[in-house]
Amino acid sequence: MANQTNSAEVLSNQTQNKLALVQEALDSGALSSIRRMLNGLQPTAIAHLLESSPPQRRVVLWELVDKDQEGEVIQELADNVRAQLLSDMDSSDLAAMTEELEADNVADILQTLPDAVIQEVLAAMSTQNRERVESILSYEEDTAGGLMDPDVITVRPDLTLDVVLRYLRRHEELPHSTYYLVVVNRKDIFLGLLPILKVLTSDPNMTVREVMDTDVTALHFSMPDKEVAKLFEQHDWVMAPVIDDEQRVLGRITIDDVVDVIREGADHSLMSMAGLEEDADTFASVAKTAPRRAIWLGINLLTAIIASSVINLFQGTIDKVVALAVLMPIVASMGGVAGSQTLTVVIRGMALGHIGRANLSWLLSREFQIGLFNGLIWAALMAGVAGWWFNDTTIAGIIAAAMVINLIFAALAGALLPIILKAMRIDPALAGGVALTTVTDVVGFSAFLGLATYFYA
Amino acid sequence: MANQTNSAEVLSNQTQNKLALVQEALDSGALSSIRRMLNGLQPTAIAHLLESSPPQRRVVLWELVDKDQEGEVIQELADNVRAQLLSDMDSSDLAAMTEELEADNVADILQTLPDAVIQEVLAAMSTQNRERVESILSYEEDTAGGLMDPDVITVRPDLTLDVVLRYLRRHEELPHSTYYLVVVNRKDIFLGLLPILKVLTSDPNMTVREVMDTDVTALHFSMPDKEVAKLFEQHDWVMAPVIDDEQRVLGRITIDDVVDVIREGADHSLMSMAGLEEDADTFASVAKTAPRRAIWLGINLLTAIIASSVINLFQGTIDKVVALAVLMPIVASMGGVAGSQTLTVVIRGMALGHIGRANLSWLLSREFQIGLFNGLIWAALMAGVAGWWFNDTTIAGIIAAAMVINLIFAALAGALLPIILKAMRIDPALAGGVALTTVTDVVGFSAFLGLATYFYA
Repeated sequence: MANQTNSAEVLSNQTQNKLALVQEALDSGALSSIRRMLNGLQPTAIAHLLESSPPQRRVVLWELVDKDQEGEVIQELADNVRAQLLSDMDSSDLAAMTEELEADNVADILQTLPDAVIQEVLAAMSTQNRERVESILSYEEDTAGGLMDPDVITVRPDLTLDVVLRYLRRHEELPHSTYYLVVVNRKDIFLGLLPILKVLTSDPNMTVREVMDTDVTALHFSMPDKEVAKLFEQHDWVMAPVIDDEQRVLGRITIDDVVDVIREGADHSLMSMAGLEEDADTFASVAKTAPRRAIWLGINLLTAIIASSVINLFQGTIDKVVALAVLMPIVASMGGVAGSQTLTVVIRGMALGHIGRANLSWLLSREFQIGLFNGLIWAALMAGVAGWWFNDTTIAGIIAAAMVINLIFAALAGALLPIILKAMRIDPALAGGVALTTVTDVVGFSAFLGLATYFYA
Repeated sequence: MANQTNSAEVLSNQTQNKLALVQEALDSGALSSIRRMLNGLQPTAIAHLLESSPPQRRVVLWELVDKDQEGEVIQELADNVRAQLLSDMDSSDLAAMTEELEADNVADILQTLPDAVIQEVLAAMSTQNRERVESILSYEEDTAGGLMDPDVITVRPDLTLDVVLRYLRRHEELPHSTYYLVVVNRKDIFLGLLPILKVLTSDPNMTVREVMDTDVTALHFSMPDKEVAKLFEQHDWVMAPVIDDEQRVLGRITIDDVVDVIREGADHSLMSMAGLEEDADTFASVAKTAPRRAIWLGINLLTAIIASSVINLFQGTIDKVVALAVLMPIVASMGGVAGSQTLTVVIRGMALGHIGRANLSWLLSREFQIGLFNGLIWAALMAGVAGWWFNDTTIAGIIAAAMVINLIFAALAGALLPIILKAMRIDPALAGGVALTTVTDVVGFSAFLGLATYFYA
């Protein structure tokens, strides 16, 4: 019977309740009832539960998953969580677990393991499976070859659709998502795609050549996965063939693999800007999390010291007018916020492929204008606040001027830094924020305290 | 013939070169050659070019696009860019442009227009098209209903596959992505899905009931689009049926529509954390961009003033030891960076549905430990730097203690603030960063200057 839930929202709530029950049962230690509940869930739900659990609890839960579910669950897991669970399994168990999975998913799973273990698992696999998996492992992980599934049905152009239909019927089950057959010549050279829907609706006496789509792109195995994802997104593809240098068909990429790439790519900017790994495990242990974050904090400490040494130059002035110490963080902070707005827009625009030489000057000019506009507005307000606060029109004028200067610098730095960093082959999402706040702190403190030194000297 | 490029990377470079040529031609004003080149591009490439162009250039380019390409191009455009171009068109042109498009895409396009214009365009459409589009417009934009395409092929369970095949063959063309037929009873109640691949490979004398999948979920029209996207991602769906309260089939959602939702959802956190709109147009005009950013800067100015008023309390101490003014931004800055790391991890974990009551205490404890660990490391280093810099062991001890305190507060605030904000129905991605830096600034300045006041008093 069809699922009778009125709405999948309800279903999703039901699943959530089940997850909470499992958690409770784990807390109370009723292992046998947990095992029953756990294995009553779908593999995706089990994977979600594992991802939502702290590392030690994960190990316990994983022990309770039925052997015949393990493969399905492991392929749904995020890389980091998967690596944690696999590290405890021996290679024959691993080989057994991956037996029922598709070759591209097996390759995915193996790629998270050390090389020695990969070799052991491969040795424990059947010859046919080993060859298929090895062929995928030979491609770089983040390329079309690495995403590819070699399980592709090819047909010759001179067959009639009727013959194709009979050929398909000989399969008990077709590879998943076989919505297109790949048309090749005798040398396996790619010729076009034959949509299954056209096989169904066209005259059975027509030939493959007559109905196939030739206005399609085959992807070279070396294409970066992010390019692949962009093409899938732009063209609403569900499947694309992968070819080698001689245009021979190697396999196919399906939309479900591409969705993961899109998700990871979109996470990349967010996580990198905080100095985090893009596929960070939400529940990674302290030992795994602390060092990476420590490095990032260390880099920031360095830039903060640089900013402080700017302040240090103006000790004498601060000693004279202590109100400067009160107000100076405002100038730096506003520059940092304004700059990070520009930076975020530019980093996203670069990821979307919107920004190039042709429109950079336009973008710089717009950011300059926005910096000037917002600088003037908030500088005026801040001048009022500072004048009233310290009853000093000089300090009001100084902070206003420093804010306008810093917001303009912030806008230009936010737009230019990611482009400069990219040209230096440094990831703008990772380094952009640190570089930017260094600029806005240094400019902010210099402008404010420099002007103050001039006027109060 | 098949596309003979050796690699789509080459193709993509070719397209980029064409885009550069178009830009150059626009600069030199050779309009007729631009028109020719422009309309030689695929609709997705034209859309990309429009998105990569400043607003005024967009209008010129749009004028040059052939009438019969307009519909295809407009449906590929980001919402904001689309809205800009449509605002200049009259309703009969709009109606003509959307004639060839699918009803769900037309509804998408119309939703960016003012209500009065929508009514005019609908009135100018053919009756059949109007009814289809109106039925979609009646659903909320960000729900399953709003994503849905009413164009769905349904079959009864008691038909044989042979009859189904003949029925399909009567269609000259099937709706795009018809990889599943939807099985319904006489009252249109949803019963299951019939994969096209099974129709092809099963015995033609079997009935639909015998081969259909019943272990599938139909989505209620009111389900939020983000839930829909999560289900598609988890289950690797390419199509899902949409139902009403009585389980009657209303339409279907296909993966290409869902990919856009995934992309937007992933952009949401990134953009919101800088106070930007998630679907911001990279090349929006100053007039459109400046006000939203100004509001954000205003909010930040307020929090910066709060932090400054904390410093103001300790003017006397700073007057005595001016080195405090030099060092205090370091304490605040390290807290801000450490807190934003935690904040980013938690916001992403919440978006992925990883974080709930069951694991919150574990997460808090981990963040506390990381805060303590990183606090101790960098506090020790900073104490050394400060001691050497100002030749003062008291100030070294004070900055070390303040840093440890602030990093622990930062970790806890980074983990708790998003959860508190969400409970208050405030978007954590939008408000989290401001709330966090307010905490880390106030705690950082208070701890550092408070301790200094105690020791130097």
